[in-house]
Amino acid sequence: MKHGSMLMKSVKSSYWGFVKDPIYGYIRLTEVEKNVIDTLAVQRLRRIRQLAGAEYVYPAANHTRFEHVLGAMYLAGVVGENLPVDLSSEEKQKVRLAALLHDVGHAPFSHLFEPLLLRFLHRTHEDMSSWIIADSKLTDVISRQGYDPKELSGLAIGKYGASHNRFLGQIISSSFDVDKMDFVVRDSYHTGAGYGSVDVFRLIYTMDILDGNLAVDITALPALESLILARLESFRAIYFHRACRAVQMMLLRALELAKDDLEILRIDNPDQYLEWDDYSVWSKLVQNTKSREILRDLSQRKLLKCAYEKTFFVKDELVSSVFTNENVRLKLEEEISRKAGVPVEEIRIDVPSLPSVPYYNAFEIGPVDIPVFSKTKTGAMIPEKITELSKVVDVLQVFMNIIRVYTKENYREQVSDAATKVLGESPVSNVLSY
Amino acid sequence: MKHGSMLMKSVKSSYWGFVKDPIYGYIRLTEVEKNVIDTLAVQRLRRIRQLAGAEYVYPAANHTRFEHVLGAMYLAGVVGENLPVDLSSEEKQKVRLAALLHDVGHAPFSHLFEPLLLRFLHRTHEDMSSWIIADSKLTDVISRQGYDPKELSGLAIGKYGASHNRFLGQIISSSFDVDKMDFVVRDSYHTGAGYGSVDVFRLIYTMDILDGNLAVDITALPALESLILARLESFRAIYFHRACRAVQMMLLRALELAKDDLEILRIDNPDQYLEWDDYSVWSKLVQNTKSREILRDLSQRKLLKCAYEKTFFVKDELVSSVFTNENVRLKLEEEISRKAGVPVEEIRIDVPSLPSVPYYNAFEIGPVDIPVFSKTKTGAMIPEKITELSKVVDVLQVFMNIIRVYTKENYREQVSDAATKVLGESPVSNVLSY
Amino acid sequence: MKHGSMLMKSVKSSYWGFVKDPIYGYIRLTEVEKNVIDTLAVQRLRRIRQLAGAEYVYPAANHTRFEHVLGAMYLAGVVGENLPVDLSSEEKQKVRLAALLHDVGHAPFSHLFEPLLLRFLHRTHEDMSSWIIADSKLTDVISRQGYDPKELSGLAIGKYGASHNRFLGQIISSSFDVDKMDFVVRDSYHTGAGYGSVDVFRLIYTMDILDGNLAVDITALPALESLILARLESFRAIYFHRACRAVQMMLLRALELAKDDLEILRIDNPDQYLEWDDYSVWSKLVQNTKSREILRDLSQRKLLKCAYEKTFFVKDELVSSVFTNENVRLKLEEEISRKAGVPVEEIRIDVPSLPSVPYYNAFEIGPVDIPVFSKTKTGAMIPEKITELSKVVDVLQVFMNIIRVYTKENYREQVSDAATKVLGESPVSNVLSY
Amino acid sequence: MKHGSMLMKSVKSSYWGFVKDPIYGYIRLTEVEKNVIDTLAVQRLRRIRQLAGAEYVYPAANHTRFEHVLGAMYLAGVVGENLPVDLSSEEKQKVRLAALLHDVGHAPFSHLFEPLLLRFLHRTHEDMSSWIIADSKLTDVISRQGYDPKELSGLAIGKYGASHNRFLGQIISSSFDVDKMDFVVRDSYHTGAGYGSVDVFRLIYTMDILDGNLAVDITALPALESLILARLESFRAIYFHRACRAVQMMLLRALELAKDDLEILRIDNPDQYLEWDDYSVWSKLVQNTKSREILRDLSQRKLLKCAYEKTFFVKDELVSSVFTNENVRLKLEEEISRKAGVPVEEIRIDVPSLPSVPYYNAFEIGPVDIPVFSKTKTGAMIPEKITELSKVVDVLQVFMNIIRVYTKENYREQVSDAATKVLGESPVSNVLSY
Repeated sequence: MKHGSMLMKSVKSSYWGFVKDPIYGYIRLTEVEKNVIDTLAVQRLRRIRQLAGAEYVYPAANHTRFEHVLGAMYLAGVVGENLPVDLSSEEKQKVRLAALLHDVGHAPFSHLFEPLLLRFLHRTHEDMSSWIIADSKLTDVISRQGYDPKELSGLAIGKYGASHNRFLGQIISSSFDVDKMDFVVRDSYHTGAGYGSVDVFRLIYTMDILDGNLAVDITALPALESLILARLESFRAIYFHRACRAVQMMLLRALELAKDDLEILRIDNPDQYLEWDDYSVWSKLVQNTKSREILRDLSQRKLLKCAYEKTFFVKDELVSSVFTNENVRLKLEEEISRKAGVPVEEIRIDVPSLPSVPYYNAFEIGPVDIPVFSKTKTGAMIPEKITELSKVVDVLQVFMNIIRVYTKENYREQVSDAATKVLGESPVSNVLSY
Repeated sequence: MKHGSMLMKSVKSSYWGFVKDPIYGYIRLTEVEKNVIDTLAVQRLRRIRQLAGAEYVYPAANHTRFEHVLGAMYLAGVVGENLPVDLSSEEKQKVRLAALLHDVGHAPFSHLFEPLLLRFLHRTHEDMSSWIIADSKLTDVISRQGYDPKELSGLAIGKYGASHNRFLGQIISSSFDVDKMDFVVRDSYHTGAGYGSVDVFRLIYTMDILDGNLAVDITALPALESLILARLESFRAIYFHRACRAVQMMLLRALELAKDDLEILRIDNPDQYLEWDDYSVWSKLVQNTKSREILRDLSQRKLLKCAYEKTFFVKDELVSSVFTNENVRLKLEEEISRKAGVPVEEIRIDVPSLPSVPYYNAFEIGPVDIPVFSKTKTGAMIPEKITELSKVVDVLQVFMNIIRVYTKENYREQVSDAATKVLGESPVSNVLSY
Repeated sequence: MKHGSMLMKSVKSSYWGFVKDPIYGYIRLTEVEKNVIDTLAVQRLRRIRQLAGAEYVYPAANHTRFEHVLGAMYLAGVVGENLPVDLSSEEKQKVRLAALLHDVGHAPFSHLFEPLLLRFLHRTHEDMSSWIIADSKLTDVISRQGYDPKELSGLAIGKYGASHNRFLGQIISSSFDVDKMDFVVRDSYHTGAGYGSVDVFRLIYTMDILDGNLAVDITALPALESLILARLESFRAIYFHRACRAVQMMLLRALELAKDDLEILRIDNPDQYLEWDDYSVWSKLVQNTKSREILRDLSQRKLLKCAYEKTFFVKDELVSSVFTNENVRLKLEEEISRKAGVPVEEIRIDVPSLPSVPYYNAFEIGPVDIPVFSKTKTGAMIPEKITELSKVVDVLQVFMNIIRVYTKENYREQVSDAATKVLGESPVSNVLSY
Repeated sequence: MKHGSMLMKSVKSSYWGFVKDPIYGYIRLTEVEKNVIDTLAVQRLRRIRQLAGAEYVYPAANHTRFEHVLGAMYLAGVVGENLPVDLSSEEKQKVRLAALLHDVGHAPFSHLFEPLLLRFLHRTHEDMSSWIIADSKLTDVISRQGYDPKELSGLAIGKYGASHNRFLGQIISSSFDVDKMDFVVRDSYHTGAGYGSVDVFRLIYTMDILDGNLAVDITALPALESLILARLESFRAIYFHRACRAVQMMLLRALELAKDDLEILRIDNPDQYLEWDDYSVWSKLVQNTKSREILRDLSQRKLLKCAYEKTFFVKDELVSSVFTNENVRLKLEEEISRKAGVPVEEIRIDVPSLPSVPYYNAFEIGPVDIPVFSKTKTGAMIPEKITELSKVVDVLQVFMNIIRVYTKENYREQVSDAATKVLGESPVSNVLSY
């Protein structure tokens, strides 16, 4: 026993200190983590907000990617400590580092920027994370700490080679990864939206490995359902909120207008990319003559107004296939424009489930894939099919398409009428919509 | 304006003071409420726990009906203040009083006692509430405060005559009443179970009257879904928890054994009934020679063990119809007894969805009935069908039957095998089950 | 590293499961702890409320000693894991067990019963804890788990022999022990009183051993001050609250009246003592002809009224010495009685700082004794004197004597006037006093 | 009663909607407030962080002045509703607007910028608030809503003419104003520092007017003490935290170096001033050749290190008088420089109690001035002296001077030794200091 205690001491001694988080309390940091955190790549996340646009609906939603990655790292550590398999201290450290670094590639305004990243840099933010970890000044720091940047660059986005331990990658990226667990709880804390009461520790304490995959004991099914529903409600209450989307569309438009002057879209290496954050891009857009006007509107909360909204709470195959096609959308905008007598550039159809809009890739909930198991009296794990066990999970797989038509305040009336003609009658309630 | 302020003062002056609640903060009480609270009938609720049995799973779940009715009264007041219709101060006071009194008829150990109430007193706890309000010492107090006990005795259980204001009764008793809103949040607070994050104020702030009925704006659909799911998860995580049910069955058995010595089952009037609470009944059972042994077991947390459990996450019409029939259950118990070689009185099949078990009537979620509406641009309310708008709500209508077989620890093995033969293979996971 | 991991697994395997606490989340239990918890002695604490009387002021304050001892055990474990000294698994387990058992000797209604314990059994509740651990059915259970009841019976009340590890006892009982840390936070949670925001984990994470004593790093001084102030405010807002004291005095009076019929005061061994709890004693008092009337009053919240109150916020040596003498108090009661024309038995002077009243021994804050240290650049610990470092701590050592005169509602006026003549003018504010 | 209800409706109808706050839940906004909020002056506060520098210690402390002013407005409304005097709807609206606008004059990085404001614009941030309200584009908006900008410009900083209602100004600015109540609670929520558990509603519910001044009933003394202590602990744990101060000093230095290029210091009118916020100034400093290097250090969390620290927990008149004199400080820096052999510009003595440092004016706690009263049985208010009633408050008036010497990491050793020679021995503990 003495030996065990001493062993723990030696591990303890590598801890550097604590940092305080309002969600989890004190988070212990190792020397290694401290050194990785104190890099430009990670510190930059202090200036990239977690939910760009949401602050216009939830004034306190000013949390950043920085505290989110610390939280994800913390949860990754808890998973590592509690999985009923032998993980070495080094493996646990790797998983924590990967969680810490998983969002290092986010562009300014997080998901909002995603379409531009794709169009101009031909990369998702995950690709950027990998690139930065493997090929920037951060890379040297990681190496100096004795870890392999290549390995971490895969692990950080959930790609982890060997089949026997692919669960390590799934801790970072899967249907119930530490990323989702942290953001659901954290977004709820800072927005006050009240949909994030998820028993993440129950999920974690019942995790096990099933055929090399991270899996959850069905005794934690209530916690799993809560996580899935909380995510769903978060989308409705926060990410897809009418005003929140308006801000996102306006910012995205501003970015598109100013794109020729945005150096971030013409970078040669990750270190150049890392120069850019919410602060610098916002300031740029404020000064840029093409985007200036939109920024002035945003600065006075003069938002695009939703003139029409229709939600399909069941999956409408036809509708969704139609809207995946950008041409169809443009045609509809034109038709509404004609009927409303409003310039077409003042009309914008927003369909949150379209690939072209932000959050689209965060949106594949895909609960089908969640590996769950039950345990027999002898302790054997039996794979179960979650959608058979849980009607709740089953139904949450397909859930809603929203179609909205936005325009400026003064065109609202005409556009509303025209959209109704083109897209059908739809009620608009808006008591609680600041 | 001056006049308005003075009017408010006069109302203010009738306030007696505050009481502090950990959920809502300060709750203001009027003189009338203070006088009704300080009666034996209401004060007795201090000694009736909200969730009898749950404390064996969630050690901190020691909250009582007393704080629950204060909370329900508070929420009823918030509804009254915020409904966009003209309610007089008196009407608001009535609704608050009705919420305060709605649980006054609960027997010791709340729902647990329900089957005995039905069998011996031929009354539900709601009937008892009505009776007590209308015909006990409490009745005089109510009258002296200037309120009509008859009217309150109906209102307190949701029965309210006139069709134009039946919504007043629905504030107290309906699919989204202040009772449910309070207990979902409160049970979660005290158990720590973490499924009660419901945005009740959003629900309340969007309520309106539709054809005389209390209705919810569909903009609050996320909050409504959260409420329904939170209730569902509460049932699974708290009320139907394996160990929690074991305690309930043991207590119920003890009550049945000692029933001939329980004066509460032979009362002539409400005031006699009010003599009984958790304290007195528990003490009685401890001393009673017939129930003593069970109480001794409970006092050492020697609980019945679940030897077999099977959950049907889809509504199984056949199974449920079979189990509604008590004879079928007895036959199955006998068959298991025979196969296991264990006395039949040591075997107990528990089917939480059966009418004969506690909570059965709290269990009809019935979201079909929830009136929702959308508002047009002109402010008109259009009735909507919630199950068409929300697949989540739709699916939660039917959700699960659990069959369990309980026995003493030393018979567990045999009973488990026998039950498997009789009822089919079933996995048993129990990592998290204190 | 592998070895370390395997070692941890073996420790893990001795864990029995989890229990959920609303304050700390999941608390892991070992098999040993599970077996000790499931005894009559520990389970009985479910029926002994933490704050007898406080529920009349804070309706939700229905928490019991049971969840408190689980919380104390949890914190003791956190201290054990984090102290920068080598503790064996066995030592850590001992400390957790001692924390679990530290309150096992509490009488019904906790501190309220203390004067009777002292007078009739000549024991404090700590003495009772020791006795029960060392000489009851619980003793056998402890032995069977491989632990020494004698050793635990000392450790549980902070008495621990050897000077080199007396800090183990101080984890359980000292100026900043796990008992205080848990109850300050827990009482605040359940009352909602809002004075319990203490950063207990900061305290714990900075603890070290100084000359064999548990000591706190001065970097945690803010947390320490918060703990001390939170305790102080708790006394004022909860324990010494006017109505709370009224309930306590009434219950104590009922106990005194019925004492000849209370078997608990004539026990021969701890197992007899353990038969008694809040439920059985309350039921007894309700039936007892001598105490019945008081219980009836309590059951309708007809409380003694405070006719006079004076608080000395500075230590008044003279006053306090006078009031330590019971005769002086009786004389004053007689004088007030005479002047008021009210029977002397209807007048009761309450002085919360007197030794004869409940909580008196919980009241010695004694911050003088808190060992604190600072660390030099080389890591050496330098003892500091906390009262020199912190004026806040210094001033909180002496703080207040309250003198109150209680009587029945109908005598209030006369008694108030008479008390003013005898004890001097005093303001009475009572807006927030339910 | 009907009339009253209708009156309330008419008030209700002027409400525009809700906004959700994580602290208080839903905050109702009137049309007037909505229009004032949606101005550049108020919206700009979204880009001014509440606690510049604190995020380097508490990663989640990214909240802004925007949510703070909404919170202050909310609390001002609660005070207005609950004060036992007749306030017209218009007066209540004024007080809410004043609270909303009270911080509109803050410079980028809030208090951090204060010394520059003073030196170059000869104005405090309160002066700026007044100026902006009275003479900017915001002024027109206020006028159009039917309110007098002049009046609000005074009220917003607590200056309110007539003696009979000066309490209106004190709601916004006094020892226990809505500003302090909100920030203590809010800073605690977002930092997680855990010192902000203040029962602000108890304070508010017991407020009254004493000789035209806002005053607190002594029954709320515990809440008042909590507020004062929470503020004190906040200073120690957040505002004066070693690393937090390092960031502030670095940013301030960067601002001073770049001051000739900072247009904000050469403004002609408030509207020019409002162009500047954290985003634009930070971006400016990043590009500016003089400040660039410091910003690069900050971007990698390469902070100045504290080489020496000494805290005087008692007021040291001599020391404090010495340090008020900037020349003395410069001399000491030179002496340390000489003894350490380190360039003088690399040494910086920081004395948080000095007028020249940020927060200085927020720092005058001045509890002496808090008007408190007790109520006699007849309801009369008797003024009390708080420092006589509360030793805690008394002692918190004078509490600490901290002297620190900062330098770059590589000079730490020498500077530490030199400072010790010059300023005396001092312990440095730093386990918890991220």
